[in-house]
Amino acid sequence: MSDTKILLPESDIPTHWYNVIPDLPGPLAPYVGPDGQPVPPEAMTAIFPPAIVEQEVSTERWIAIPEPVREALRLWRPSPLIRATRLEEALGTPAKIFFKYEGVSPAGSHKPNSAVAQAYYNREAGITRLTTETGAGQWGSSLALAGSLFGLDVRVYMVRVSYEQKPHRRSMMQTWGGEVIPSPSPLTETGRKALADDPDNPGSLGLAISEAVEEAAGREDTNYALGSVLNHVLLHQTVIGQETKRQLEIAGAYPDVILAPCGGGSNVGGMMFPFLADKAAGRDLRLVAVEPDSCPTLTRGHYAYDYGDSAGLTPIMKMYTLGHDFMPPGIHAGGLRYHGDSALVSQLYDAGVLEAVAVPQLATFEAGVLFARTQGIIPAPESCHAVRGAVDEALRAKEEGRERTILFTLSGHGHFDMASYDRYFAGELENYEYPEAAIHRALDNLPQIGG
Amino acid sequence: MSDTKILLPESDIPTHWYNVIPDLPGPLAPYVGPDGQPVPPEAMTAIFPPAIVEQEVSTERWIAIPEPVREALRLWRPSPLIRATRLEEALGTPAKIFFKYEGVSPAGSHKPNSAVAQAYYNREAGITRLTTETGAGQWGSSLALAGSLFGLDVRVYMVRVSYEQKPHRRSMMQTWGGEVIPSPSPLTETGRKALADDPDNPGSLGLAISEAVEEAAGREDTNYALGSVLNHVLLHQTVIGQETKRQLEIAGAYPDVILAPCGGGSNVGGMMFPFLADKAAGRDLRLVAVEPDSCPTLTRGHYAYDYGDSAGLTPIMKMYTLGHDFMPPGIHAGGLRYHGDSALVSQLYDAGVLEAVAVPQLATFEAGVLFARTQGIIPAPESCHAVRGAVDEALRAKEEGRERTILFTLSGHGHFDMASYDRYFAGELENYEYPEAAIHRALDNLPQIGG
Repeated sequence: MSDTKILLPESDIPTHWYNVIPDLPGPLAPYVGPDGQPVPPEAMTAIFPPAIVEQEVSTERWIAIPEPVREALRLWRPSPLIRATRLEEALGTPAKIFFKYEGVSPAGSHKPNSAVAQAYYNREAGITRLTTETGAGQWGSSLALAGSLFGLDVRVYMVRVSYEQKPHRRSMMQTWGGEVIPSPSPLTETGRKALADDPDNPGSLGLAISEAVEEAAGREDTNYALGSVLNHVLLHQTVIGQETKRQLEIAGAYPDVILAPCGGGSNVGGMMFPFLADKAAGRDLRLVAVEPDSCPTLTRGHYAYDYGDSAGLTPIMKMYTLGHDFMPPGIHAGGLRYHGDSALVSQLYDAGVLEAVAVPQLATFEAGVLFARTQGIIPAPESCHAVRGAVDEALRAKEEGRERTILFTLSGHGHFDMASYDRYFAGELENYEYPEAAIHRALDNLPQIGG
Repeated sequence: MSDTKILLPESDIPTHWYNVIPDLPGPLAPYVGPDGQPVPPEAMTAIFPPAIVEQEVSTERWIAIPEPVREALRLWRPSPLIRATRLEEALGTPAKIFFKYEGVSPAGSHKPNSAVAQAYYNREAGITRLTTETGAGQWGSSLALAGSLFGLDVRVYMVRVSYEQKPHRRSMMQTWGGEVIPSPSPLTETGRKALADDPDNPGSLGLAISEAVEEAAGREDTNYALGSVLNHVLLHQTVIGQETKRQLEIAGAYPDVILAPCGGGSNVGGMMFPFLADKAAGRDLRLVAVEPDSCPTLTRGHYAYDYGDSAGLTPIMKMYTLGHDFMPPGIHAGGLRYHGDSALVSQLYDAGVLEAVAVPQLATFEAGVLFARTQGIIPAPESCHAVRGAVDEALRAKEEGRERTILFTLSGHGHFDMASYDRYFAGELENYEYPEAAIHRALDNLPQIGG
């Protein structure tokens, strides 16, 4: 029998990250302040180590992965590329379906790929503590894991409502030595203010970011780490696409279409950027970001300058956005509820290099359950978006009677999201359809740069 | 860098199971009835398919694994053998530590290895439904997964208190299409009786077994499946040890000692039986079952004829036992709370081929946390027992300044056991020390065979 799982030796863990910046269709739009002036990279060193700040704007195409980072990645990488033969059979499709499975990391998603790099660079810069925020808990877990591997203390501000609803993600962070603080907290100015206004404040990702950044900015020994959106995070994730290319060679296959779930863009960038050179060389390859139709940043947002956070504290980035005060509904793919998108993904989407589709929540869970019952693995709700996209492509291939090769990233498992499946089975989940007016309202509040 | 993860291609999934029965130090003691007469294998066909009944008493050394079972195993097998270099460094030991990681299965433990085989043989026998019981949920999940892969309906009687405390394991089973019934239930005679006595009955594994067996015995289309203890279950698990032997060859290593967590014995048998031939040929190899000191079946029990269940409904087996009405405390390694042990493991332990150690609960969690913080993976509480055993061996090697090779099975991950870690961190867990008298009391109630 030929193998359904394409495995690589550890020597095939990439030695370099691929930096897409020199290959963008145009110059990278700088981060700017409210005055419209570019924010100098040095301004970021209050919360990021020099190496990360450098990577954020580097024009080097290949950046060497430090050996201690590769050593940490070896704990779970290379991740497998798997042919989903049972899913193919269940769909009766002539298409071949491959998925790259990132749920093999100890934290259960692709997020640790960047977390270990960020922990390493901070340790090298003499930093001993990191702060971050987490909603659903994927990123917080990943940074706690990375902290345990590199000997850094990690404090995670966890949105209070998640802290209470997802105690198991919290326990996971604590098992890796992470300190988990429900946000808003009395530990920061921002938190104290929020609690004074409302002692029962359930918290939000925006608030938690502000608390983590405030603490990092105010302490010499402490930096901040972010799990998506920024250029260096997407850079670190390109190990995914590089490994996949090697694995496809072994399988003797090449995709017609690649799909990845899209929230801040780290999974899309990590998988797809290494394939851009092939596309530029003339390969007929579609690259499709799959987003929730309840937070349709690429498919219904605007390409404009906007804040990265809801409070308007971050630099202003040119990106696809629904407006920084857009409040997406409480869908169960918490990792895809960001109002904006990575500047890199946005620019490539605007240039027509990347495509996007938006899918409704119920259809994503339906696809996730089909996947679990055929391939065994229960996907995270975020990953269910890519599964849905792949299933739709496979059904289209069946309709058209065409052999096609479909590749998607299964960004993580759903072991900590079973309550969402529960609600799906109980018929308690629903789709959200956004009236155009609601989106327009949020877009009215884009910052007036230099105004 | 040399690989820390020894991976095998799918063609190295064993083609045969290894049956230890012909290699036992003496004849296999038959299962008997209260009259002391052997139970004929045919008596088991009311609840098991013929192929399984045959395997239970087969004297063939090698039994071919049907191709559809190998096809199902391919979803996650071969599982990796991993060198725990970071744990070695943290301990400062001269020992090499390897672990076979069975948490890569979709259900998160080694249990699906037997579940897919049992589902297959039942389907071949024209059975369309399976019943089983589950406490912590590992086995119920595994059978639900196997049912989804082979198109069988699966009903799991889940101990009511677990049903309420572990909703995520329940959701997992439902995602694979399994039906989960809190036990005691109004669906069976046994359940109705228990509920009549006490409508708030929290349930027990013994009760759940009785409900599952009662239903299977009463329906033509339905059989029962068990996740440990019986000979055929240990047989199916020998893929673990066979793969490990091949992986050790590749690593150029051979263990001085192998450790596995021991509850019913499926992990011990699965890993260790394939190594018995080496030991018989003169290899200096220690095989150590690690059990909780709060349920010290091998280390403090008696080798005697006893019932497999607390109600005394099953055949009587010769095994190490604490007495079938021994009630172990509510420790967090639910899979290790069985009063007895597999007849095969018991016989080999009695003959001095296998050793056993008992470890206290707090020490197992301490080892599990150390493992998580060095190797990333968070072990299941059951698996923490083997980790503890391996750590103790490594520390002994350090004390003695001896190079040694230690191998253990990491039988599963702890993603569904984070509440137990939580309680450990909160200082709410304790050790249990059994007064000799308590054990003697339970042993007084062994069945009087033929009496």
